[in-house]
Amino acid sequence: MSDIKKVVLAYSGGLDTSVILKWLQDTYQCEVVTFTADIGQGEELEPARAKAIKFGIKPEQIFIDDLREEFVRDFVFPMFRCNTVYEGEYLLGTSIARPLIAKRQIEIARQVGADAVSHGATGKGNDQVRFELGYYALEPGIKVIAPWREWDLVSREKLLQYAEDAGIAIDMKHKQGGAPYSMDANLLHISFEGRHLEDPKAEAEESMWRWTVSPEAAPDKAEYLDLEFEHGDIVGLNGVRLSPAQVLTKLNELGGKHGIGRLDLVENRYVGMKSRGCYETPGGTIMLKAHRAIESITLDREVAHLKDDLMPRYATLIYNGYWWSPERRALQALIDTTQQDVNGWVRVKLYKGNVYTVSRDSKDTLFDQTIATFDDDGGAYNQADAAGFIKLNALRMRIEARAGRK
Amino acid sequence: MSDIKKVVLAYSGGLDTSVILKWLQDTYQCEVVTFTADIGQGEELEPARAKAIKFGIKPEQIFIDDLREEFVRDFVFPMFRCNTVYEGEYLLGTSIARPLIAKRQIEIARQVGADAVSHGATGKGNDQVRFELGYYALEPGIKVIAPWREWDLVSREKLLQYAEDAGIAIDMKHKQGGAPYSMDANLLHISFEGRHLEDPKAEAEESMWRWTVSPEAAPDKAEYLDLEFEHGDIVGLNGVRLSPAQVLTKLNELGGKHGIGRLDLVENRYVGMKSRGCYETPGGTIMLKAHRAIESITLDREVAHLKDDLMPRYATLIYNGYWWSPERRALQALIDTTQQDVNGWVRVKLYKGNVYTVSRDSKDTLFDQTIATFDDDGGAYNQADAAGFIKLNALRMRIEARAGRK
Amino acid sequence: MSDIKKVVLAYSGGLDTSVILKWLQDTYQCEVVTFTADIGQGEELEPARAKAIKFGIKPEQIFIDDLREEFVRDFVFPMFRCNTVYEGEYLLGTSIARPLIAKRQIEIARQVGADAVSHGATGKGNDQVRFELGYYALEPGIKVIAPWREWDLVSREKLLQYAEDAGIAIDMKHKQGGAPYSMDANLLHISFEGRHLEDPKAEAEESMWRWTVSPEAAPDKAEYLDLEFEHGDIVGLNGVRLSPAQVLTKLNELGGKHGIGRLDLVENRYVGMKSRGCYETPGGTIMLKAHRAIESITLDREVAHLKDDLMPRYATLIYNGYWWSPERRALQALIDTTQQDVNGWVRVKLYKGNVYTVSRDSKDTLFDQTIATFDDDGGAYNQADAAGFIKLNALRMRIEARAGRK
Amino acid sequence: MSDIKKVVLAYSGGLDTSVILKWLQDTYQCEVVTFTADIGQGEELEPARAKAIKFGIKPEQIFIDDLREEFVRDFVFPMFRCNTVYEGEYLLGTSIARPLIAKRQIEIARQVGADAVSHGATGKGNDQVRFELGYYALEPGIKVIAPWREWDLVSREKLLQYAEDAGIAIDMKHKQGGAPYSMDANLLHISFEGRHLEDPKAEAEESMWRWTVSPEAAPDKAEYLDLEFEHGDIVGLNGVRLSPAQVLTKLNELGGKHGIGRLDLVENRYVGMKSRGCYETPGGTIMLKAHRAIESITLDREVAHLKDDLMPRYATLIYNGYWWSPERRALQALIDTTQQDVNGWVRVKLYKGNVYTVSRDSKDTLFDQTIATFDDDGGAYNQADAAGFIKLNALRMRIEARAGRK
Repeated sequence: MSDIKKVVLAYSGGLDTSVILKWLQDTYQCEVVTFTADIGQGEELEPARAKAIKFGIKPEQIFIDDLREEFVRDFVFPMFRCNTVYEGEYLLGTSIARPLIAKRQIEIARQVGADAVSHGATGKGNDQVRFELGYYALEPGIKVIAPWREWDLVSREKLLQYAEDAGIAIDMKHKQGGAPYSMDANLLHISFEGRHLEDPKAEAEESMWRWTVSPEAAPDKAEYLDLEFEHGDIVGLNGVRLSPAQVLTKLNELGGKHGIGRLDLVENRYVGMKSRGCYETPGGTIMLKAHRAIESITLDREVAHLKDDLMPRYATLIYNGYWWSPERRALQALIDTTQQDVNGWVRVKLYKGNVYTVSRDSKDTLFDQTIATFDDDGGAYNQADAAGFIKLNALRMRIEARAGRK
Repeated sequence: MSDIKKVVLAYSGGLDTSVILKWLQDTYQCEVVTFTADIGQGEELEPARAKAIKFGIKPEQIFIDDLREEFVRDFVFPMFRCNTVYEGEYLLGTSIARPLIAKRQIEIARQVGADAVSHGATGKGNDQVRFELGYYALEPGIKVIAPWREWDLVSREKLLQYAEDAGIAIDMKHKQGGAPYSMDANLLHISFEGRHLEDPKAEAEESMWRWTVSPEAAPDKAEYLDLEFEHGDIVGLNGVRLSPAQVLTKLNELGGKHGIGRLDLVENRYVGMKSRGCYETPGGTIMLKAHRAIESITLDREVAHLKDDLMPRYATLIYNGYWWSPERRALQALIDTTQQDVNGWVRVKLYKGNVYTVSRDSKDTLFDQTIATFDDDGGAYNQADAAGFIKLNALRMRIEARAGRK
Repeated sequence: MSDIKKVVLAYSGGLDTSVILKWLQDTYQCEVVTFTADIGQGEELEPARAKAIKFGIKPEQIFIDDLREEFVRDFVFPMFRCNTVYEGEYLLGTSIARPLIAKRQIEIARQVGADAVSHGATGKGNDQVRFELGYYALEPGIKVIAPWREWDLVSREKLLQYAEDAGIAIDMKHKQGGAPYSMDANLLHISFEGRHLEDPKAEAEESMWRWTVSPEAAPDKAEYLDLEFEHGDIVGLNGVRLSPAQVLTKLNELGGKHGIGRLDLVENRYVGMKSRGCYETPGGTIMLKAHRAIESITLDREVAHLKDDLMPRYATLIYNGYWWSPERRALQALIDTTQQDVNGWVRVKLYKGNVYTVSRDSKDTLFDQTIATFDDDGGAYNQADAAGFIKLNALRMRIEARAGRK
Repeated sequence: MSDIKKVVLAYSGGLDTSVILKWLQDTYQCEVVTFTADIGQGEELEPARAKAIKFGIKPEQIFIDDLREEFVRDFVFPMFRCNTVYEGEYLLGTSIARPLIAKRQIEIARQVGADAVSHGATGKGNDQVRFELGYYALEPGIKVIAPWREWDLVSREKLLQYAEDAGIAIDMKHKQGGAPYSMDANLLHISFEGRHLEDPKAEAEESMWRWTVSPEAAPDKAEYLDLEFEHGDIVGLNGVRLSPAQVLTKLNELGGKHGIGRLDLVENRYVGMKSRGCYETPGGTIMLKAHRAIESITLDREVAHLKDDLMPRYATLIYNGYWWSPERRALQALIDTTQQDVNGWVRVKLYKGNVYTVSRDSKDTLFDQTIATFDDDGGAYNQADAAGFIKLNALRMRIEARAGRK
C-alpha cells in the first residue's frame, strides 16, 4: 500500500467521495488529485473545488472539466447509431458515461504523474468494472484503489462516524438516513436503485422521479418535433442546428415536459446478481425512436438486420464496461460504416409518455414509392418473379417433406 | 392449367376472394372448396357460406372454422415466448396468422382430395410467400394458384368489371374507390397499408385507426392489470384464469380502451422493397412488456442474452414465412426449453397509450434480495471477489495496451 | 427481346460460350462484345480472340484481361482475412471469382455502351446468382441474358447440333460425350461436379484430380515454408517478397506438389438443392492454416471470437453471391479493422496432404511468455485473482441452483 | 479455514495431488475422501488406492470409478453433434472432461457428507474455472479448496521438499526436473503444455507426441473405414456395433496408427492470457470429419447454417467451463433436436495424417439426385424459377444502386 505516491480520484464533492478523499490521504499517505466532471448531471461543480481545497488539495491538482459535448458526441451518439438497448429495455445511461470518466482520469494521471486512480463505486455494482476496465485498457500499469472493496467502513454508521471524525460536513439528508435511493445522473439519464426499490414487487413512488413529470401531469396537448439527422446523428431540432450536447439537453427538456422515458426494470448485472433499477431517459427515448425511423427509410434491409443481430452483443459490451476494448471498436467500425447515408428528418409526436413517429423523409431514401404501391406500378416490379422466388426458397423444404420429415 | 381438379381457396367472402373464386371456376374449370377461418378478425363468417353457395359450391365443400384458440395457443404464444419483434418495432401480427391458414388449408386439401390451393395475396407482398412456403413445406407436391400473379385483372377497374360481369354484388365502398387502406386483422392485430400511407411523409389520419381510441381520448385515469404466467404464457388476468384466446381478447379490449399499441413504420419486405405500415396491437403490446418483466426475474442472465441474440433471426424467419421450416422448429426447441420456470405474475399500469411495468414476483424468482441489497448483506457476497474478477477480465486488454496497440 | 442492342458476354472460348455467342447473335440480332479474363484458370486466352473474330466480333469489342493480381489482392485476400469457410469445409474458390467477372463485365458494358450482359451459367447452380446479383448491384438498369434459362437447347445433343449447324468446331472430347466433370478453375482452386460425382456414395476417381498429386505420390520428405504477413495478407514466402498473385501461384505449386487441399463434399446450394463437389485448393489450404496461426498470436481473444462468430454469415454471403452487397461491405469494414496488427511470420510443414503449423512469431505478438509460463512468473499474474473471477462468474448459477432449478 | 470437516479431492495418485492430499490434511485438519476416475487417460488406477491408504484414507472413502462410457456418451458425443471446435482448431479434449469430474465429485460429496471439494489445477489455467463452475452450479453451497491458489509451495523445489518431508515417494522423473511438459489425457485426447512449448517459435519435438505415430512413420498404405451414425452419434465401425467408449477407443487406435490428429496452436485462455498447446486427438479428428459428412446429406441447409452460426459460442461455453450452465443446456436442446435424422454411414480414407471423406449415404438423405443432376431432370426443377429468385433477391440492391449509393 505504501508505494502509492499520487492518486487521481473521481470526486463528486459529495459525502461519500469526500470520505474517500480523506481515507486515501490517511491510508496511503499520498497526494490526492481530484477530478470532477460535468457530464450533465445537473449539479454545481464549484463547491467540489472549495471542498477539495479544505482537504489540502493544491489548486493545480483540482480538475473540474465540462465534458458534456464530448460525452454526447463521442459516446452517446455512437452508441445510439446501433439503436442500443440492454436486455430489451435499458438505454445504458450510466454505462456510457463511465468510459469517459475513466479516460479523462487516465489523461490527468499522465499529466500530473500519478501512479494510481480511485473511484467511489461499490464492490457489488457494474460501475467498478466499467471504471477499472477502462483504466486498465488505457493505462495497463496503473494502480487502482477501490475504497469500497478495501476499507472497513461497511455500514452507513461507520462511514458517518469517519466523516464526523474527519470534520466533513454532513448535511441533514445524510443524518436522517441518507438518500432514499442510490442515484446517478448525466445528460442521458438519471437512475434510481436501492432501498424501497429492492423489492421488485414494490411499485416505485411517484415522488422518486425527478426529470419527468408524470404522464398524468403532462400537457393535455401533443407536441410535434422535427429531428434532423446526418450520418445517423441528430444535428438539428425543429429546423435549428444544434451541437450534440444542445440536442440532448433540448430533448430532455421536451421529453421531461411530456413525461417521456420512465422505466422500471430488473436487470442482470455483470457481477452476477439481478438488480432493480428505475430510469428516466427522456431525450434518449425520443432519439431511439427517431433513429429507428430515419434508418427505416435509409438503411438497406440486410444491413439493418445485421445491426439488429449484433446490437444485443454491442449493448452487453457497453453495459459490462468494455467500451475501450478492441471488440467494441471493431463493432463500431461496422456500425459507423452503415451510417453514411442515414440522413434526413423525422417528425415525432410527444404526448403523455408516448413518442410516436408520424412522418419521415430523406434525400437518401430507399423507399421507392413506384415499387411499393398497391396501385399499378407500370412494370417497375414484375409480380411473376415472385413465383420463382418462392419456388426456389421452398425447394429445400419440399425435398425435406418428401423425405418424410415431420 | 387444365390438370387441376379441385382447389381449396382461402375465402374471406369479400369482393376480392369472390372474384378469385369465380375466376378459378372460369379459368381452371375445377371444383372449388372454400375455407373461411375465424382467427379473431372480428367479422361475421356466415355470410361467406351464403356467398359460396351462390357460386355453386356444395355445402360439404364449404369449411368455416373457429381457429382462435389454436391461433393464440400454438402460434401467438410460442412467438411471444421470444419477445419477438421485427426490425425493432413490428409485432408480426399478420405474419403469425399465415402459417395457421396454410396448415388448415392443406389439412382440408387432404381431406377433400384437392390437388391445389389458392389464396388472395398479391404478388408484391409478404403474404404470398408466407402462404406458399407453408403449403410447400407441409405438402410438397401441392399445386399453388396465386391469381394476382396470373390473371390480367391488374387494375381496380378490370376487377370490378369482372365482378359485375359475374354478378358479384359490389357494395358501395368498392364502387366509391375501394377501401382507403389495405387492411388485415386477427386476434393479434389490425394492419393498414396503401393509398395515403404510401407516402412515408404523410401522417396517418386519426380516422384510420379502428381498434384503439386515440391516447387523447383514452380514460384520464390509469388502470392496473395483473398478468399471471405459466411457462412463459399468460394463463390469467386479474386473478381470473382464462384460455389463450380469452386472454388476448381481454387484453385487446383493455389495450384498445387505453389507446395502447399504435405503430407507424416503414418495414423491409422479404420480396425486396420497403413498405409503410400502420398497426394496432393493443393486447400484444401489453403481453410483450409483461413477458419481458416476468423473464427479468425468472430467467438466467446468459439464457436471456442468448434469446435476445437469436430473437431478430427468429423474428425474420416468421416475418419471411418460415414458420414451418426446420430451423424455426430448432429455434423453438431452444426457446421453449428456457420457459420452464418463467412463472409468476406481473402488474402493469395502462394509461393513455403507455404500458408501465410496476411490480413483478414469482415463486421461481432468481432475484436475490440478500445479495442485491445496498445495505449490509451479512457476507452473502464477498466484495473482494470483484477485484479478481476485474483483474482477469482486464488482463487481455492490459497485455494489448502494453503491446502498444491503440 | 428485340430491344437489346449490345451485349457483353463472359466468353471463355469454349464450346458452350461459343454456342451462346452465336445464339445471342441469332436470337437478339444484337452486337456481341466478348470478355475473357485470366484469373489464373491456366488456359490460353488468345484462342478466344481468334474464335470471337470468326463470329464476326470486331477487334475493339474483344476484351481479354489479365485480372490475376486484382483477383487475389481485392477478393481472395480480403476473404481469407476472415478465415472464411463455407459449411465447415469449402474454401469458396468459385464463389469469390464471380464478383470480379461481374464487375469487369459491367465496366466494359459502360465503356462500350452495352445495354445487356450475358453469362454461361446454368439455371440450377449458384453461379447465375453470383453473376446476376453482381450485375444488378453495380448497374441496376442492366439487362441480363441467361441463355441456359431461356433457350431450348436443353440436352447435350441439341447443343452439339446447334454448334454443328453454326459451324463451331467441336473437338473430340465433346463428340465423345463431353468432359467427365463440370470444372471451374482460377488461381484459388479447381472444382469438379456432375456425372460420376452425382452419386454421393461414389468415391472420386484418382484420375479426376488435376492440380495436386495424390498424397501417396507426394514427396516422402516434408518441406518447411515460411509465410510473412502484413495486415493479415501474405506478402512474402521464404524471405522473398511477392505480389498477391505471385504468392498464390507459388503456394499452389508447393501445395500441389505435396498433395495438399483435396476436398470431397456435399454442399447446400443457394437455389435450394444439395450438390456434390470436389475441390483442389492447394494454396488456399496453406493460407487458411497460416492465417489462423498468425492471428493466434496477434489478435485479441474477443476480437478473434467476434470474427469466428460472424464468419459463417460472411461465408454464406459470398457463397450466395452477395459480394457487392452493403452488408458484405459492412462486415468487411469490421474484418479489415481487426487486421491492422496481424503482422509477423508463420512456419508450416508440408507433407503428403498435411499442413502443420510448427512455429510463429510477430513483433506485434500478444503472447506474453512471462504471464503464460508454468514456472514462477515473478508476480506478473496474481493467482488469487482467479478465485474472485470464478466466484463472480459462478454467482448466477449458484443463485439458480439454490432456487432449485435443475 | 478450520470449519471444513470433509473434503473430496480429485486424486490422480501422482506427485502433485499426493502433496495436495497431505497438505489438505495438514492445513485443514479434515478428513480427505479421494476420487480417482478412469476417463481413458490410460493409466492404472489401483496404485492410487494404495497411495491413498498410505495417507490414512479409509477404504470406504476411496472412490475409483470407470467413467469412460459416461464420458463419451454424455459429454463427448453431445459436443460432437455440433461439430464443435474452439478457435477454429481445438477439439476441446481437456475442456469436455472437467464437467464430468466435477459432477462425480459433487455426487460423492453428497454421498459421504463432505462440505468441500478440492482439485489440483493451477491458478493460471482454465481447468480451475471448469472444475469450480461445475461444483458451484451443481452444489451452490459447496466449499472449494484450490491449493495452488492458496499455498506457498510456489516453486517446484518447495513442492518437492514438502513431498520429501511428508514421506511421499518421488520418482526419478520428478527428481530430474519433472515432466518436460504438463500433460492431460482422456479418451478424447492428450495435451501438452509448458516448458519448451512456451516459446511459440519453437517447433514441438517429435519425441513429445505419445498417441500418434508421425505421419512419416505411418503405414504407406491407406485404410478405409466405415462409420455408422444414429441421431448424430457413431454406433458402429466397419459394420460392428460398438458402445460409445468402444467407438472412441477404436478410432483412437486407427487414428494413432495413421498419424492423425496432431495439432500445435496458440489459444486464448478464459483467464486472459494466450497459451501454447499441442494436442493429439486421433479419434476425435476422424469423428469431426465424418459427422460433417453425414450431416451434409441429412441436415437441411438452414438448420446446418444455424448450427454453424452458434457453434463458436457453444464451443466457447465448453472451453470456459460452462457445461453445467442453463445456456449450454438451452443450446444443447436446439442441437439435439437437429440430430433426429442424422443417420447413415460415412466412409473415410485414413492416410499419413489425413482423413478424407470419400463416400456417404443415408436412408434419410436430403440429397436429391433428380434435382441436382447436370443432365436433363425431367422437369423436377424449373430453371426459369431462378430468374424470379434472382430478381427479387437483387431488388433491394438495385434500389440502392439507383439511389446512388456506392
